[in-house]
Amino acid sequence: MKKVGIAGYGITPFTKEDKKIESILFESTKSLLENNPKISKNNIDAVLVSTNNNSKYLSPILSEMMGIQPKIAHSVENLCNSGTNSIVSAFSYVASGLADMVLVSGAERYDSPGQILEWDNSRGEFKHPIFWASIFTSSYKRQFAVSDEQLALVSVKNHAQAQNNPNAISKKTYSIQDVINSKIITGDLKLLDCSRSCTGSASIILASDEMIKQITDQPIWISGIGQKTTSAGFTKNESFNSMESTKIASHTALQMANKKIQDVDVAEIHDAFSVCEPMALEAIGFSKNGEGLNLVKELYDKKDYKINPRGGLIGSGHPLGATGIAQTIEITQQLESNAKNRQIENAKVGLVHNMSAAATSSTVLVLEK
Amino acid sequence: MKKVGIAGYGITPFTKEDKKIESILFESTKSLLENNPKISKNNIDAVLVSTNNNSKYLSPILSEMMGIQPKIAHSVENLCNSGTNSIVSAFSYVASGLADMVLVSGAERYDSPGQILEWDNSRGEFKHPIFWASIFTSSYKRQFAVSDEQLALVSVKNHAQAQNNPNAISKKTYSIQDVINSKIITGDLKLLDCSRSCTGSASIILASDEMIKQITDQPIWISGIGQKTTSAGFTKNESFNSMESTKIASHTALQMANKKIQDVDVAEIHDAFSVCEPMALEAIGFSKNGEGLNLVKELYDKKDYKINPRGGLIGSGHPLGATGIAQTIEITQQLESNAKNRQIENAKVGLVHNMSAAATSSTVLVLEK
Repeated sequence: MKKVGIAGYGITPFTKEDKKIESILFESTKSLLENNPKISKNNIDAVLVSTNNNSKYLSPILSEMMGIQPKIAHSVENLCNSGTNSIVSAFSYVASGLADMVLVSGAERYDSPGQILEWDNSRGEFKHPIFWASIFTSSYKRQFAVSDEQLALVSVKNHAQAQNNPNAISKKTYSIQDVINSKIITGDLKLLDCSRSCTGSASIILASDEMIKQITDQPIWISGIGQKTTSAGFTKNESFNSMESTKIASHTALQMANKKIQDVDVAEIHDAFSVCEPMALEAIGFSKNGEGLNLVKELYDKKDYKINPRGGLIGSGHPLGATGIAQTIEITQQLESNAKNRQIENAKVGLVHNMSAAATSSTVLVLEK
Repeated sequence: MKKVGIAGYGITPFTKEDKKIESILFESTKSLLENNPKISKNNIDAVLVSTNNNSKYLSPILSEMMGIQPKIAHSVENLCNSGTNSIVSAFSYVASGLADMVLVSGAERYDSPGQILEWDNSRGEFKHPIFWASIFTSSYKRQFAVSDEQLALVSVKNHAQAQNNPNAISKKTYSIQDVINSKIITGDLKLLDCSRSCTGSASIILASDEMIKQITDQPIWISGIGQKTTSAGFTKNESFNSMESTKIASHTALQMANKKIQDVDVAEIHDAFSVCEPMALEAIGFSKNGEGLNLVKELYDKKDYKINPRGGLIGSGHPLGATGIAQTIEITQQLESNAKNRQIENAKVGLVHNMSAAATSSTVLVLEK
């Protein structure tokens, strides 16, 4: 397969601002082009927009705003992992030879229609993701005898780590007691266990081996891709305390990259809710089943930012269509040694985990220097 | 580049029925699998849904309904050429080696939100495609001194040809006077000049060279792909009587396939409105500028179905996300000699032209035996 790398990126702050989807797509793409003066708009063969926004034709609209006339132009949607689906689609355009350079721009508004699963009539009134998250939390705590305090540490850690991320929505740290005492959303879920919907955009450029050398001396390569969709509804999951699609996707991605989990120096994990972080760590193989929270504690005690250095979804905010792209940018910055006070020392291999709808669909990417 | 072919297809009638988007996606996919018993669901690596519908997560939903657990799953949207964009995306997944077999399923409801360009505030009240079509019609008629009678023949021809297409929405033929006397929509546009929004779905399977041989002895290959987006708004067009993006896309597609326009035996042309057919015929190179309607008349007089054998969008109906896929199925059936009473004799090379929003974005595919 042809080598495909990351040639540049741009990102906006994640906020609660009421901005038009077009404006934030423009903002992150403008920042990308300003950060990378060697990228010529004329070389951009494809523009993919990742969003759950109901607006149509956003790729041609973004292209026109930026002065790009691409060959390939379309939007991509798959709820919360739209971002990595767009990146994999861009990868395939380059690897197939249909494009040499692809702009992927993801954006969401705080009021995204992807947040409430209106289409699924089988859910009755239980259309908000908090309901599956609540069932997962209850199941995971029972199965592995996990206390509220243990679980709350995910939120404590990720809010703390977000303080080093200037684009994060979270501007505060919280104690374990703050998390436990935060507003009760369901019996098992507190407000601070939840990632927040927000307004934000993230853009990235993928390019072929030949093209990328004209732009940067230290490209970051996408060496592993794994994807799996097991179902559309979480009641079909094997259990409520494990993530089958994530397990398959990470196995495939590591195999493609010819890497072991021990080789991974830094990872972005899709912590849409607190319980997702240990479940994903276990599915990916960072921890044994039921031991994900031990790793969270170990890293927190050591002040090791290996997992979710930018603060995860809980600390950074979760603008659905932008999330997978923002995660990929974080790992890229880590591997470039550009992550400032979030930097993991000597990071050579990174992993991105991005999922949708109770882990019924997962993407895992492996990135390398 | 790896060879990618068409391994199977399924389609629903195009109607005005009030069906759920999930139901019609299911219907065409079910028909595809029933028509192709050698396709194993376990070999389907990717499921792409093409639609302008606002429902999210449709690819995992369709996958679950069909009993497919794909690796890659997402929706694709780019207004009226969503269908061919999905096919090109599927092509790239196969050609890159990320997938061996991809299901592409397109669907739309009669009340699609892609029909009214709500997002474009620069249009004022002129949000319906009839406004650009009206300006195009007026400009084309003035530029090339075209009469109402000459233009009306596009609708007459395509309604007539649709009578051989059992899935077409049109069940009637019309005379030139019927078209001219049909309801006035704008000063330049009559009701019978317009393709109709409808409810319908079309599904297609793309597969690699190795995989396709297990399924069919006579695969149809996608040998040429051309795409271009020039802008998002038609006021940026070079002129209102030519299609720049179509010109570039068809040039690229024919070049990739190493074919000349004279080699093309049969073509699907995106006749969203009457005037689009001659304009596209000229942009693609079937006719010189201003002479597209001469070709329409010549073919009509000879009862030659070469252009839009299934009745085009005007005769078949235009369920946005399904249209490009339905066009590709028609050309596939022609090349397989499976087009029954629509069959072009000895068709070996076919072309698909699918565009969006006043030809601001175009896709052209070349298909071969």
